[in-house]
Order: sequence, then structure tokens, then C-alpha cells
Amino acid sequence: MNPTDFSAGAAWQRGAFVPIANASVPLTDWGFLRSDATYDVVTVWDGAFFRLDAHLERFARSCARFRLDPGRTPGEITDILAQCVRLAGLRNAYVEMLCTRGQPPWGSRDPRQAVNQFFAFAVPYVWIANEEQRARGLNVIVSDVQRIPPSSVDPTAKNYHWNDLTMGLLGALDAGGDSVLLTDAHGNVVEGPGFNVFAVRRGRLVTPREGVLEGITRRTVIEMAGALGIPVDLRALPADELRTADEAFLSTSGGGVLAVTKVDGRAVGSGRAGAVTQRLQETYWAWHRDPRYSTPVAY
Amino acid sequence: MNPTDFSAGAAWQRGAFVPIANASVPLTDWGFLRSDATYDVVTVWDGAFFRLDAHLERFARSCARFRLDPGRTPGEITDILAQCVRLAGLRNAYVEMLCTRGQPPWGSRDPRQAVNQFFAFAVPYVWIANEEQRARGLNVIVSDVQRIPPSSVDPTAKNYHWNDLTMGLLGALDAGGDSVLLTDAHGNVVEGPGFNVFAVRRGRLVTPREGVLEGITRRTVIEMAGALGIPVDLRALPADELRTADEAFLSTSGGGVLAVTKVDGRAVGSGRAGAVTQRLQETYWAWHRDPRYSTPVAY
Repeated sequence: MNPTDFSAGAAWQRGAFVPIANASVPLTDWGFLRSDATYDVVTVWDGAFFRLDAHLERFARSCARFRLDPGRTPGEITDILAQCVRLAGLRNAYVEMLCTRGQPPWGSRDPRQAVNQFFAFAVPYVWIANEEQRARGLNVIVSDVQRIPPSSVDPTAKNYHWNDLTMGLLGALDAGGDSVLLTDAHGNVVEGPGFNVFAVRRGRLVTPREGVLEGITRRTVIEMAGALGIPVDLRALPADELRTADEAFLSTSGGGVLAVTKVDGRAVGSGRAGAVTQRLQETYWAWHRDPRYSTPVAY
Repeated sequence: MNPTDFSAGAAWQRGAFVPIANASVPLTDWGFLRSDATYDVVTVWDGAFFRLDAHLERFARSCARFRLDPGRTPGEITDILAQCVRLAGLRNAYVEMLCTRGQPPWGSRDPRQAVNQFFAFAVPYVWIANEEQRARGLNVIVSDVQRIPPSSVDPTAKNYHWNDLTMGLLGALDAGGDSVLLTDAHGNVVEGPGFNVFAVRRGRLVTPREGVLEGITRRTVIEMAGALGIPVDLRALPADELRTADEAFLSTSGGGVLAVTKVDGRAVGSGRAGAVTQRLQETYWAWHRDPRYSTPVAY
């Protein structure tokens, strides 16, 4: 790869900025061999980070939860992220910061002896759903694969333990769906690969309280609902309540508020993006221009 | 790194053999970013692979389970593994084969569109326990972290979802233990980081039947017990049955049969490696010289 061609994206790795195609993790890093790592994703839209502080705060909490130390202040991380975006020349970007365990000295199996490693990269904005899917709304399949429970892995600390999500996704794609929602042991839907889920029932939003990543977009939806006077219930969401909802949508950094118009191939509500969903979509993009939430990248 | 110095280990990656320190996984490979990968570990002892066929068979099953294709026959994989061992000049080695998802074309989130990638490496033999720990027997701590359940991730297909094991290990090390055993939702011990567990009670072996990796060393122990006329019970193993066992041991490719002499800091049985454990240890190493189980490396 041309070491100065950052057009496909730029990464920070091992002390240097490199084109994304040249970025790698040592094969022996426990971040790979034990998925012993945490990360966060912030987006850049129209030249500005959206809710950068919230992502930096959650990244710090995730690191602390897994006893990982990125060795950098939030200010230093911001500088690296901004430089990745600048090098790639992106106005709209998917920007990931991550910390791996590294590896202990040879012969040791003690994670406390490892030197943790920080990486970052910026690539063109990633949509969870393509344009056609966004136009018609998504058909999500409720899987019988159960999301890894909080008693095993803390879902509020962002992690790469995605085998359940990936196997569920494969099943959903095979069944003709666009994406998948995993369930908990009691038949409640919890989350999908890269998104939280909301049902709209009788003018109220319902979204799972526990067993899920506390997505920043989920939080944004809850705050937007507050601003718009829409009540929000944080509680378990049985799959049947989603199927019989008036509207349903996903929240994700990969596109914001995405209408779900079918569950398991059957129409939700009218089978089209609902009024509440559309109002939240408009507000989501409007908030991107609000200086309270946006941090311009100095190109 | 010197591109021809294989003394610390050798790896196969992206179509070439490289020194282990130069081996890496692309940062954007879903094998890393979603821990979407599987692997197997075979050992070389005194110049011969131990139970290579069993490891190759399990690797093929794990790949199939996760819909990964290493793109190589068992014979081709064997050649690559042997060449890693030869390049590193190792008589005793820890040899890992692995397959990652790779990544789908840009913009796609469909795992079926990714080109899977095969990697391998050989490094000096890894002992789960150091010499002092092996001499006195291990002190393992029963954790309240629950192993990721089979309803979420199939434990019989070897995977890198180790956050539960790592967080449990950190707690055990903080508490002065040597390693950790995770539990299931019912208080049974299941497995630890890199090993299965056995209790010896009234002349019988007990080891968990479900929710665990079906370790090749575990299988070897079961087969050795058969040859030695020791009955084996495959069933749930409540933590208290382990604590009050006559003997206890771990089975692992990283050292074979390792005596557990303390659980939670309290002596198991006599507090020393028991007679059954020692007999299995001797048989384990004797079987390494048995041509039924060993495949010499052509150096």
C-alpha cells in the first residue's frame, strides 16, 4: 500500500499514523487472542464530531471496567482522532478509539503485567442500513440466539464479544431479513449488531433498561424524547410487544434513528416509518448542528 | 525486527512466514473488531505433534460451526504448522492455527461476503502454570463471574470470547490465587482460562459434561482413565463437590494434567497432588511417546 495514501481512511497504531489498509494489531496481542479490549465509536458529520465528550467519557469508563489503560488523556485522544479525520480528508466519518491488553512478558499469563495499547482510526461514515433499506424501513428478525448475559460480560462496557450477534445476523440474513435482534433468557429483545431498539406504543417509547449497551444514540433518543415531550419507559421489552407496536426503530451511531417497518417479515403498525420515528429522525440530524453537541474538526 | 530471526517463534500470515514479532492481523479484520474467529492449539513435544489429527478435526468443526472457511485442507494446514515449528527450531512448541472472518466489501455488513483468512504460529511451549506452581499444585479460586452460556456462544467451538475468563482471572490473582474457575448460573464450576477441571471422588473422576470446551486433553484424560480402569462421570460439578473432593486437577494443552491442591485457598484432600492425579500425569507424558498419538516433525 502507498504509505501516504490516506484516502480510504487513516489509523493511529504503534506510535504512527498509517493508511487504514496498513493498520494492524500484533497477532499475539491479547486484544486479538482473547478479545481483551474495549472501544468506542464517535461520528463526524459535516465536519464536526457529534457528542465527542459523551463518547470519550464512556471510553474511559469501559477502560476502567476492564482494567485497561489507554495511557492518554481525553485531550490527547481527541487530537489523535482529529488527525485521523484530517489525514483521511473526511467530512463524514466513522471514528473508532480502542485499547487492547497488549501482552504480558513471555511465560506470564498475568494480565496485570501487560502494557496496554491504544489504537484509533477514521474511515468514511458507516451506515448500519443501506439507502434502499433506509427508504423502506428495516425488516429485523428476532433471533433465538441469546445476547451474552451481564453476569458473564458487562454489556455497558463496549466490547468485541460479537459471536452471538454475528451468528444471529447470519441466521437473519439467511431468512431474508436485514438485521437481527437478540433476546435474553426470558424472550425479551435486547439489542442487535451495533444498535439499540425502541418500540413506540400509544405515544410512549419503550426501550430495554438492562442487558444492553447504553448507546450514546440511545441516550440521544431519550433526551430528544424529553425535549419533544414524549414519555420514555426503560424496561424489559418482550418480543411480542415489539411485533405489535405502533412503530419501531433502531438507534445507532451508524445512521441515527432507523425505522423498523417489519419484524420477522410482518409489518409493524402501518408498515411504514411512523410519525414519532420521523420526528426523532429530523431532531437527530438537527441536533448535529447544535453547538452543545458538536465539536468542529480543525481541517 | 530482523525478518529472518525466527528464534522467538514463527508465524504464517498473509501468505508468508514471518518472525512472530512481525505477525499481525489487519485492524479492520472482523476477527479482531468482532472477535469473529476460531482457532485450535496443538503442542509439539520432543519433536512430535501430540494428537494432531484430533486438533485438526476439532478446528474443522469449529470453522464449520461459525461458518468460517480456512481455505486449506488438513494436509495443507499440517504443512504450514510444521514449517512454523521448523523455522523456529522448536522441539517443544505451542502451535496455533486460526481462521478469521476477514472483512466484507466496503459498506457491506454481511459476513457471508467476507473472504476468510487463515493464520498460524509456533512459539516455545506454553505452561499454564510455572514450575513452582506445578511443584506445589495450584490454588484456584471459584469466581462468581459466570462463563458465557451455550445459549449465547457455543463453547465447543473454540473462540476468543475470554472477557469473562480474564475478569475472573484478575479477581483470582488479586485474591492471591494462581488461576480461576468460572461457574454457570447454578453454581457449578465449568472451566477456566485454557483448561477443563476434574474432581476425584471415591476413586471416580467427575468433570462437567456441558457448557465447556471439549478439550483434547480432557478427552485424553477420559481415555487414559478408561485404559487405567478409573470410572469417569460426565455431569454437572457443584463447586462444593470440588472443594470437598479427594483430589482435583486441571487438563490443558499447556502442561497436561495439573494438580489443584487448594480451592479458594483451602486444601483439597491432603493438600498435595494425589495418587490418581500423579498416575494420570505419568500416563499423559508416556502417551506422548506412543506412535498412535504422535506425529514427528520432519526438521
